[in-house]
Amino acid sequence: MSEKIPEDFRDLLVGPVPVTVATLMPDGSPQLSVVWCNYDGKHILINTARGRQKEKNLRRRPEVSVLAIDPENPYRYLEVRGTVQLTQEGAKDHINELARLYRGMPAYYGYAAPAEREKKETRVIGIITPTHVVARG
Amino acid sequence: MSEKIPEDFRDLLVGPVPVTVATLMPDGSPQLSVVWCNYDGKHILINTARGRQKEKNLRRRPEVSVLAIDPENPYRYLEVRGTVQLTQEGAKDHINELARLYRGMPAYYGYAAPAEREKKETRVIGIITPTHVVARG
Repeated sequence: MSEKIPEDFRDLLVGPVPVTVATLMPDGSPQLSVVWCNYDGKHILINTARGRQKEKNLRRRPEVSVLAIDPENPYRYLEVRGTVQLTQEGAKDHINELARLYRGMPAYYGYAAPAEREKKETRVIGIITPTHVVARG
Repeated sequence: MSEKIPEDFRDLLVGPVPVTVATLMPDGSPQLSVVWCNYDGKHILINTARGRQKEKNLRRRPEVSVLAIDPENPYRYLEVRGTVQLTQEGAKDHINELARLYRGMPAYYGYAAPAEREKKETRVIGIITPTHVVARG
């Protein structure tokens, strides 16, 4: 069951303010990190690299939560709980798109990250289907 | 085992920028919310009210994670994973202290929250002992 994100909160999901994502560690405890994301009208899309803690966690358990806070007003925020699907397809184009949205950069590698990391890293998109949405403020 | 929070990141734990806290829902999935906190040199102290989702979650399972982001630089942040102990002792004084730190208000009820809620709500302090700390930026 997919749940809708209120239209007047979607601005929080398209940059330039990073969002917080929660995953589950092997022992079931929560792990948090800061990521870029965008929104395709139905899913929140995050981007990570294979082997990172959150990627390993999401591969094991797809339960995820995203929190986006309005930088102008920290009491206006959106929590989206959901499940994630991981894919490598289009993941390099996607991280470049996020580098544009978040940093105004023409590409990710060579700008936000060292160019030499491009050959070592395998990018992964996390496609999040919302199951529960809390909008405040 | 308690883990130390680096001194040069403690500024992120004393306001005025709210932090994100992750708890675990009954099905084990992560839940996120935005809270005020302070730091006593060893523990992160958050404050909530009895019956709230995060309070119920923490009562059931003490695993928690806190993420604090520098408002001047979202790429500088601190993640503190840990376990929580809940207490009502001193919890009203503590929420007043947080209202001062975060909003410069003389008290919580009557200022940040309607005065009439004071009789209905039971405040609770969550005392978080850090077990794993990630500092970035």
